[in-house]
Amino acid sequence: MEKFMQEAIKEAQKGLAEGGIPIGAVLVKAGVIIAKGHNRRIQKESAILHAEMDCLENAGRLKSADYKKCVIYSTLSPCDMCMGAILLYKIPKVVIGENRTFKGPEAYARRRGVKIVNLDSTDCLRLMQQFIKNKPKLWNEDIGK
Amino acid sequence: MEKFMQEAIKEAQKGLAEGGIPIGAVLVKAGVIIAKGHNRRIQKESAILHAEMDCLENAGRLKSADYKKCVIYSTLSPCDMCMGAILLYKIPKVVIGENRTFKGPEAYARRRGVKIVNLDSTDCLRLMQQFIKNKPKLWNEDIGK
Repeated sequence: MEKFMQEAIKEAQKGLAEGGIPIGAVLVKAGVIIAKGHNRRIQKESAILHAEMDCLENAGRLKSADYKKCVIYSTLSPCDMCMGAILLYKIPKVVIGENRTFKGPEAYARRRGVKIVNLDSTDCLRLMQQFIKNKPKLWNEDIGK
Repeated sequence: MEKFMQEAIKEAQKGLAEGGIPIGAVLVKAGVIIAKGHNRRIQKESAILHAEMDCLENAGRLKSADYKKCVIYSTLSPCDMCMGAILLYKIPKVVIGENRTFKGPEAYARRRGVKIVNLDSTDCLRLMQQFIKNKPKLWNEDIGK
């Protein structure tokens, strides 16, 4: 489980190096990474390319049965939009890096049947804390604040 | 209100003419359309560009205060992902063409404070019924079935 989160963290770091918001995600199907993504708000002037959305977009048009075999890893607790995408495609499990800097609708998703595991990773936490401290305005924009 | 739905319907028809799924959306701020969009699953091989998402993406990076002055019009009841985006950005009102062919998490969004108005439009209904009849597999893919 940790190795996939490491890949998500690499995506977050890639985003940071591009001048973006350091959140990364990977989609794993049957133990194999089938897509990666990171937040591209800055890079693509995008209002919808959060890490999980970018990752799902990079995965392409999958079959419903494929999504059901997936686990999505994200360095941060998915927001309403990203959790909504997870619910739409019925991805059964989400592994998150941390939810201390931001917490999406985890309780709601659990009620809808999604399994959520929080690794409470210091690496993920540090990435976000530093970013939020450095660019609070950008961070607020990303979460609709 | 009807005139904005007419524009959303034009977007849906544009999508259909492109060989896509006929769902359209427009974003209205203070009585003026600031963005339009339509489902581009086929056109862009996209897993995330539902009509509302395409519309929000076309609107660009808005300020939080701007989203709060918006109404989003969609020819069809928003799915979990699209409603999630509406919740993320705290768009206070959604006007939908119909929810007979598909109904997203309207009750949940209402509990979260979103005002939802359903025009129950025969034009919107006919567009979807015909499409679903002609391309059921594609439709199921779009709603994660």
